[in-house]
Amino acid sequence: MAPVRVSVNGYGTIGKRVADAVARQPDLSLVGVSKTRPSFEASIAIERGYPLFVAGEAGAEPFRAAGIPVSGTLRDMIARSDVVIDCAPESVGRQNAALYQQAGVRAVFQGGEAATVAEVSFNAAGNYSAAKGKRTVRVVSCNTTGLARAAAVLRERYGVEEWEATLVRRAADPPETQRGPVDGILPAMRIPSHHGPDVQTIFPDLRISTMAVVVPTTLMHVHVNHVRLVRPPPSAEAVLEAFRQAPRFRVFRPWEQAGGTPQVMEFARDRGGRRPDMMENVLWEDGLGLTGKDLRFFQGIHQESIVVPENVDAVRAMFELAPDGPSSMAMTDRNLARAA
Amino acid sequence: MAPVRVSVNGYGTIGKRVADAVARQPDLSLVGVSKTRPSFEASIAIERGYPLFVAGEAGAEPFRAAGIPVSGTLRDMIARSDVVIDCAPESVGRQNAALYQQAGVRAVFQGGEAATVAEVSFNAAGNYSAAKGKRTVRVVSCNTTGLARAAAVLRERYGVEEWEATLVRRAADPPETQRGPVDGILPAMRIPSHHGPDVQTIFPDLRISTMAVVVPTTLMHVHVNHVRLVRPPPSAEAVLEAFRQAPRFRVFRPWEQAGGTPQVMEFARDRGGRRPDMMENVLWEDGLGLTGKDLRFFQGIHQESIVVPENVDAVRAMFELAPDGPSSMAMTDRNLARAA
Amino acid sequence: MAPVRVSVNGYGTIGKRVADAVARQPDLSLVGVSKTRPSFEASIAIERGYPLFVAGEAGAEPFRAAGIPVSGTLRDMIARSDVVIDCAPESVGRQNAALYQQAGVRAVFQGGEAATVAEVSFNAAGNYSAAKGKRTVRVVSCNTTGLARAAAVLRERYGVEEWEATLVRRAADPPETQRGPVDGILPAMRIPSHHGPDVQTIFPDLRISTMAVVVPTTLMHVHVNHVRLVRPPPSAEAVLEAFRQAPRFRVFRPWEQAGGTPQVMEFARDRGGRRPDMMENVLWEDGLGLTGKDLRFFQGIHQESIVVPENVDAVRAMFELAPDGPSSMAMTDRNLARAA
Amino acid sequence: MAPVRVSVNGYGTIGKRVADAVARQPDLSLVGVSKTRPSFEASIAIERGYPLFVAGEAGAEPFRAAGIPVSGTLRDMIARSDVVIDCAPESVGRQNAALYQQAGVRAVFQGGEAATVAEVSFNAAGNYSAAKGKRTVRVVSCNTTGLARAAAVLRERYGVEEWEATLVRRAADPPETQRGPVDGILPAMRIPSHHGPDVQTIFPDLRISTMAVVVPTTLMHVHVNHVRLVRPPPSAEAVLEAFRQAPRFRVFRPWEQAGGTPQVMEFARDRGGRRPDMMENVLWEDGLGLTGKDLRFFQGIHQESIVVPENVDAVRAMFELAPDGPSSMAMTDRNLARAA
Repeated sequence: MAPVRVSVNGYGTIGKRVADAVARQPDLSLVGVSKTRPSFEASIAIERGYPLFVAGEAGAEPFRAAGIPVSGTLRDMIARSDVVIDCAPESVGRQNAALYQQAGVRAVFQGGEAATVAEVSFNAAGNYSAAKGKRTVRVVSCNTTGLARAAAVLRERYGVEEWEATLVRRAADPPETQRGPVDGILPAMRIPSHHGPDVQTIFPDLRISTMAVVVPTTLMHVHVNHVRLVRPPPSAEAVLEAFRQAPRFRVFRPWEQAGGTPQVMEFARDRGGRRPDMMENVLWEDGLGLTGKDLRFFQGIHQESIVVPENVDAVRAMFELAPDGPSSMAMTDRNLARAA
Repeated sequence: MAPVRVSVNGYGTIGKRVADAVARQPDLSLVGVSKTRPSFEASIAIERGYPLFVAGEAGAEPFRAAGIPVSGTLRDMIARSDVVIDCAPESVGRQNAALYQQAGVRAVFQGGEAATVAEVSFNAAGNYSAAKGKRTVRVVSCNTTGLARAAAVLRERYGVEEWEATLVRRAADPPETQRGPVDGILPAMRIPSHHGPDVQTIFPDLRISTMAVVVPTTLMHVHVNHVRLVRPPPSAEAVLEAFRQAPRFRVFRPWEQAGGTPQVMEFARDRGGRRPDMMENVLWEDGLGLTGKDLRFFQGIHQESIVVPENVDAVRAMFELAPDGPSSMAMTDRNLARAA
Repeated sequence: MAPVRVSVNGYGTIGKRVADAVARQPDLSLVGVSKTRPSFEASIAIERGYPLFVAGEAGAEPFRAAGIPVSGTLRDMIARSDVVIDCAPESVGRQNAALYQQAGVRAVFQGGEAATVAEVSFNAAGNYSAAKGKRTVRVVSCNTTGLARAAAVLRERYGVEEWEATLVRRAADPPETQRGPVDGILPAMRIPSHHGPDVQTIFPDLRISTMAVVVPTTLMHVHVNHVRLVRPPPSAEAVLEAFRQAPRFRVFRPWEQAGGTPQVMEFARDRGGRRPDMMENVLWEDGLGLTGKDLRFFQGIHQESIVVPENVDAVRAMFELAPDGPSSMAMTDRNLARAA
Repeated sequence: MAPVRVSVNGYGTIGKRVADAVARQPDLSLVGVSKTRPSFEASIAIERGYPLFVAGEAGAEPFRAAGIPVSGTLRDMIARSDVVIDCAPESVGRQNAALYQQAGVRAVFQGGEAATVAEVSFNAAGNYSAAKGKRTVRVVSCNTTGLARAAAVLRERYGVEEWEATLVRRAADPPETQRGPVDGILPAMRIPSHHGPDVQTIFPDLRISTMAVVVPTTLMHVHVNHVRLVRPPPSAEAVLEAFRQAPRFRVFRPWEQAGGTPQVMEFARDRGGRRPDMMENVLWEDGLGLTGKDLRFFQGIHQESIVVPENVDAVRAMFELAPDGPSSMAMTDRNLARAA
């Protein structure tokens, strides 16, 4: 069977990683990526062999001036695709939706868009089947993905009575130098925050409530979770083992000396691969405690990369390239690891 | 009645503020403050008329070289005191305890010491009476003070079934330039954290559990609270009003545009007073939500100053200068406001 | 003689400080301040007795809703003034200029405006006389003010052959939480930077060249200066003494333990006064070195407050209330110190 | 000829990168690396096939408990080596020197040690020949390496009359979470700073003077350079071209949108390779200006990696594996690029 033709519209933090991930999947073929202006990212895309298409009003001239070859316009790219993964800035995705529909191509949107942008919101471990055969799918945001993954594990093993999470959010991605704060904590003045309902787009019956603060860091979010389970686990170690065995979790041991988000990102830099990313939920052995049915644990979420494999799985579900979530996740992760 | 003679051992972040506060109370008299080495703080202490006593091995010579007059040694200061408020660095207080006992003076310790350092742990709104007549009292730490104040309000009005708090802690005080992290989040790898049990030194029967992360800011801590109340409040506004009427709470309205810790500290700088401090628990109207019995709210805690009035109240309780917590708090706060 | 009637248009970081400073000068009278929207600053202005006038399209209604009394519109305020000190956001000042001209009032602008906004650019120690009798004056920016003050001292004593400065700039003021970067250094890609020519609006014949970087801090700028003098000073100590004797310099000694900008701002918090500001150029004894004619020194610049006394002096020059810069500076600084 | 047997003593920020670089050079063979305690770095070293030797008092037991195989002790590692690259923490290198001498092996030290630790201080572009045949060599620090590289280019082309640099230094490496400041600028209170004399260990006759400040960032240092040349270059573009043609320089163009250190590190993350490092001096086209003989330019220095290729070249010089600096640099860089 011919690989599904995938293009990536928007080549920023998420888009460039999704392109790398798509390019490494044998059952997908990367048609190209779109950019509005030249940048070092555009040069590197060309070096990696990704055809570059021009989006936006500035047109191809700035690319020519920079010596960067372009393969056509955004419309050209869409026309050659079976599916577009939309990685445009927040709320631009919704505007792009009409474009994809007119062209008769399927589309994957990111979690920055409202849930109504697509037929279904998606998490590979949570509701893979719901996206089967769909024409539009929304991959939930980084925070929601992290919570959904953890919920998938705990629901199945122990049942979840209620879940309360504090999201300690990073202020900006590393290169977003215009964003602050430099020194201070900004509570998100909406209580509960929107993340709980967003998790419920995956698990409608999950009782979850969230609050969020923004802090001056660029590396990762940290979730502080209190989960009251239905069935008491035999031990904290049993819960840790459940997480260890689930796909896309990395549980650090104390001797690894990775007790904060900077050390975790240092681990990502050390282990190598296409990029220094952590696509896994990060847990810490000594950062999880159990008292009867009350489970408390921290998890680190690398906002730049955690949704990347989910985008691949979303395409696979839409085109029914894999029978279920576990199969798709295994394929995705194996291909990504091989690329390292 | 002659004012109670109070000295402050250790003139750092807390000590210098406590000295300012004591100096403003008519029923207390400031014997002096101790320092180990000269600094601008020492010069300013002299300018404010605080006698300076020398602690530590370096002795008086460095002060003489800097032209700063000293009034004696730490032992001299203790000998002239009825009570010493120990503001030495964490765990030094315990070593000092023997000194105070030998000299036959009473002592107030800070929350950095273990609870066993004193006969009772103290919060003015929580357990004022428990400190009456005591010879040694420990004022609980900034985080514990903030939680105890809020607990005092909610317990009385609505009863607390259980309390879950995430403490988002500042990495360093503003002038502690040697401390990090610069960029990153550090989960406190002890679950639950020690703060819950510390609140229970004030309210032994309170079901409270806490987790903590450290983030790169210097200004304030923020607590993210989820409290399940016994009796459902009529409305969020009713809870806000309860906090507004309690001493040492400041509830910001949305139009005040103080929606983060930097804006709150800017408020403190603007309103003036002896120092740009926030001795009140800070709440935000739009940072509190109620769903049935489930109350969620943020509170900001200015780690440098919140325990300062509590130290004054502790002395007043020990010497029975005021009949109850509310009376003492009103006196303390009135004297501090006047000084502004 | 009746005090000169002064109003402050724009009540932000600079405006609120200028209002405080004007209110403390017996030869000036504060007509009022303008704001576009209510905030805690507006409430505090009212508490301090500053009449509040409404600027902008939102009008008085939001103030009424917040319970904050207003005394009229911006036009009303201007009509009652002899001079308006414009503290509007950068480049809004230029738009306001027509307003002032139409109303026939004089105006002081801030350094964020282009030099052409006013008849003369101003620094009290540098060119006080040039502003005498003028109808429009521009007080140069914080960085330029700091450089001009230092230049005034060194030019007079030793002559300046050439001056090379690196400006290490703060990323944002403390409450500007939307500005970054959180982690990173941003070189100002204009070489030399605009600051050198701006100093030359005060000292046209000074050979000065500057480069700038932005760093993630909120507290102060730091200038790294290399000055080649015409006449070699007898010693580094002689230069330090020249700075100590000049108005608006604070030279920290090593024993004061104020060796970084956080410690300097802690000093400002400790010494008290209306606000925790440093209106002086900050030098450090051990942060100045002399090799022949080559002088190297750091200076700290508190961007929020350093231009405040200069605004007062500018008004005094315009209305010829003081014969020369030293007299005006002495008056201004004495009145500000008394207010403490 | 058999490859030179190289071991790396100390597997921290520099050591682990040096090990990676050595492992990629065909004329060198990596004997192993030493560590004192297990960590994720130790696991990854094993995964990469680097034999691990145990240093320090804790011994092999903690490694065994963590399931990490060890190949012997530090002494074993030294015994199997022709040369040890010492990457121990600052000043520990000097203590290790005796160990190497006793074992009769050669040694490379890092710039954190005093220059007297070795026969010669080294920079590949500056004084490659001086290290030929030596038994001990010190690779100068990251800042000194960056300055020496730039000096090598400018001296040869235009001659340097005098050089004045401000070093804007990062506060901590990314995973050094215990170091601050969080918010503030710390001037280095030694004027001039030690960096100028350190560059003179490479170029004894270079007139260079430096001052330094520490700022709250983890990513890179930035040097702000003012160089008075002997011969005026024809144009700024000519100077840029000289830098572009020199090894280990990367000059960013404006369209690349890499105008700050966070964007540069993002470039490093994007281009891939063993680690997201910038071993090149980073310049910006629009961050360089020329006025007659006066050249001003910024350069970014990635403190974690810039000295890595210099360590390889140092070994090559000591064992005379390449005839001159340019040859060695070309070999090193080609091997490192291939590894990408």
